[in-house]
Parts: sequence; C-alpha cells; structure tokens
Amino acid sequence: MIDIDIEELCSWMRECGNIALRLFNRARAQRKADNSPVTEADVAIERILVERIAARYPDHGIIGEEQTRFDITKEYVWALDPIDGTASFVTGLPLWGISIGLLHRGVPCAGLFYMPLTDDCYWAVDHHAFFNHQPLSVDTTPEQEWDSEDWLAIPSDAHRRLEIDFIGKTRSLGSVAAALCYVARGSAVGAVLTHATIWDLAGGIAILSAAGGIGITLAGEPFNPAAVIDGRAVREPLLFGAPGTVEALRRHIRVRR
Amino acid sequence: MIDIDIEELCSWMRECGNIALRLFNRARAQRKADNSPVTEADVAIERILVERIAARYPDHGIIGEEQTRFDITKEYVWALDPIDGTASFVTGLPLWGISIGLLHRGVPCAGLFYMPLTDDCYWAVDHHAFFNHQPLSVDTTPEQEWDSEDWLAIPSDAHRRLEIDFIGKTRSLGSVAAALCYVARGSAVGAVLTHATIWDLAGGIAILSAAGGIGITLAGEPFNPAAVIDGRAVREPLLFGAPGTVEALRRHIRVRR
Repeated sequence: MIDIDIEELCSWMRECGNIALRLFNRARAQRKADNSPVTEADVAIERILVERIAARYPDHGIIGEEQTRFDITKEYVWALDPIDGTASFVTGLPLWGISIGLLHRGVPCAGLFYMPLTDDCYWAVDHHAFFNHQPLSVDTTPEQEWDSEDWLAIPSDAHRRLEIDFIGKTRSLGSVAAALCYVARGSAVGAVLTHATIWDLAGGIAILSAAGGIGITLAGEPFNPAAVIDGRAVREPLLFGAPGTVEALRRHIRVRR
Repeated sequence: MIDIDIEELCSWMRECGNIALRLFNRARAQRKADNSPVTEADVAIERILVERIAARYPDHGIIGEEQTRFDITKEYVWALDPIDGTASFVTGLPLWGISIGLLHRGVPCAGLFYMPLTDDCYWAVDHHAFFNHQPLSVDTTPEQEWDSEDWLAIPSDAHRRLEIDFIGKTRSLGSVAAALCYVARGSAVGAVLTHATIWDLAGGIAILSAAGGIGITLAGEPFNPAAVIDGRAVREPLLFGAPGTVEALRRHIRVRR
C-alpha cells in the first residue's frame, strides 16, 4: 500500500485545471531550447503542484517538465507534467492534461491524468486503475481480429520516422499521457511513442500497468523508466498495450532509414 | 446575401449537442454497410435538424449522412453531418461535432460546425468566417518558414495511403469538419483529407473559404463539391489551406503504390 491521498491530488489537479482553462485559446507560447512551446499555464501549474507535493510529502523527490529537479535519488520520486500536450493547448486542440506520476525506485506505482476540458480524471494506485471511477482494462483483442475501426496512437513525427503497417486508424493525440490512458481504457489497441520523457510517461504508465498493459522498446526489451529518471528523452520508439498487442505491433512497425 | 438565420441554427446545434453529450462515453455503435459506426445520437440529431430545416426552408433540398436525401436538385441544398467524427465519439475522443453546410448550386455558401464538449462554434456566411465571434483567417506562412511546431491535419489512413514529407507535426483529428476549421482559424497550416463526403465537407468548406482557404485535388485541380452532391465519397486525396500552402503541400504528398 502506498500512502498517498488520491482525492487530495485530484482536487489539486482540478484547481490547476481551472488555471489552464482560463488561458486556453488565449495562451501565448514561448519556445524552449528544443523549440518546444511553454506557456504561463505550464509554469504556474508546476509551481503550485511542486509546492503542495513538497509540503505534503517532504521525504519524496520531485522532477517536473518546467525545470524542477528536487532530490531525484529518493526512494519515492514524483514526476510532473503541468500540461502534457502543450503544443495542442497552444494551437487550440482539446487533447491535453495535467499528469502526475509517483515512482518507487524508478517504477511508476501511482499516477493521475486530468483533462480539464472534459473534466475526465484517470488514476491508478495499488494496481487498480480508474477512469472517473470506472475500472479500466486494456483491449486484448488478438491481431487476427483487428479491423478498420481499431486505432493506434502514434507520435506526430510518425510520417517521417516510422513505417506503420496497421489495418486500422492511426491518430496522433499530442499528449503522451492521453495516449497511454486511451490504451488503458481499451479505446486504442496500443500506442507508439517517440521522444518520451519521465514526466509525460510516469503517470500514464502507472495507469496503464494497473489496467493490464506493458511497455517495451521497439527492439523488444522491457522499457525501464528508471533509466530516464534524470529527464532525458527516450531515444528508441516505445510500444504500449496488452502483452500480446505490443508483440504484434513490433512486427508491424519499423524505423525509417 | 443569403437569407438564413445563423443564431437560430446555432441554437438548434446547441440543443442537438446536449443530446450527444448525454450519450458521450455511453454510446453503443452499430456498423453501417461500409463498416463505419453509427449511434443513436447520429440518428436522433439528423432527425431533429432535418425536421427544423425542412419546416423553416421548405424550398431547399437536404442531404444527410444518416440516409436523408430530399430534393437534392434544388438551387439551395443543406448538407448535414449529425456527428462528424462518429468514430472519435464512440471511442471517447473529444474531437467530434455537428456540421451543417448550405450549398448554392453546389457551392458551399454558408456553414456551421459546433463542438459540444468545448461549446466551440465555427460559422460562416456571406464570405465572413467566425470562431466564437472572433473573425477567422487561414495561415499564410510560406513553406520556407514552416518549422517543427507547425502542424498538418491528415486522415487516419495516411500511414497506409500517403507518403508525407512535412517538417512539422501531423495529426489525424477524426473529424473532417474539425480539420477544415482548424485550418480556417490558422492553427493547422493545412489539411489532407481522404474519403470525404459532401456532408462532412460542405460546412467546413464554407468556413474555410470565407477564411481565405481553398481546396484542390492532389492532382492540382480545383475541388468541385457539386460533383459529389449525391453523397459519393471523393476518391482522390484533397488538400485544403491558403492558396500558396496547398500548392506547396502538393509537392510533399504522394499516394503510395
């Protein structure tokens, strides 16, 4: 049992969600060193969450997308993405949200993802995952039964980086956490992610794992979040879904040369 | 001047949007002959809109996604998609909405697109386009200045059908009308659409045209909506955006063999 208060975390996320909603369709983005956008909403939300978490869980470390690096060698470390999907947020698309993950020795053990526009909250703790209080489980349809209406979440650079042989639809949602949550609820059959970082992965992986999903590298190795707890982007494409699904996807996806 | 009441149409769409919202995340889909999904929301909304439009505009024809074919040889014909993005709706994604277009001798001359989850309304009449009362205009950034944060709306079968050489992000929104509206507001630089039909194109094209955009076929011909007013899907991929953008996109997109 992990001793955290999910209700309290949800209430913090709703409060932060209101800040984001006030700025949605009005946000002016600045560019970071990697050319990715950041808005005043990202900065304000990270500040609030870091303050609250540091006060409530003083023995834990925290890493956040917007610069926070706080005792990341601790047994428990929180990984925060104040707005996962900032590019969607800036361009007026609805798929973005606040992601919080808790890692225990590098393994995501609890997570929350909150989408303010729809007031949808995904969360997991102690190996149970929920979407607005409904339990979640991944889709386990075998490859032979996939059809044109099944869909796969893909990254927004897939047209340049990947060859994808998939019978159904592909969609780039613009948010890593959203992609993992749509897999966790069995909407998407799986997700392919590129350039992912610990703050956009930790919460979603906790939710997906509790819903029966796993993550592997395109080479077929188990994905180990502890290896990128310092904030580096994962170089290799990652595959997420039911165990049988990720193995099947490996045979249908390759990196372009 | 076209003699239609935009305020009244918006109020009908909001009313229909509430029907869709009540069924969102609860909808059970049935499959149509082409394997695409249809829900009770699609059927109920089309019925309401057809009744209202037929009563208010008795001299006009109407065509709707869910079977309506009513005097489509008239000078003015309404094209309705009760839920554009039914697959998104069914799978719990937020990008779907109600699309209404009015064609004058086959040319879209007025249109509305309403997204109930965000209460966003796009509309155009008499060559003026608006998003929640803000005027719209397409992005005209020349190709040389596109960067990694620019984005292109693409169809969900692009991974199988198209080769896309584009420096920025690609996103499949799941709704033709949404793709056209995000281009009209200058969020997306352009849109590539496949298998489009008059009911998902008419409203969005009216809005996009009024915002300064055009549509061409991948072969470079002007797209003529009148040719598909009987409801056939457009066979060729279509490109939408500012005039310079669609010409540039033609050089970067090709159909896979």
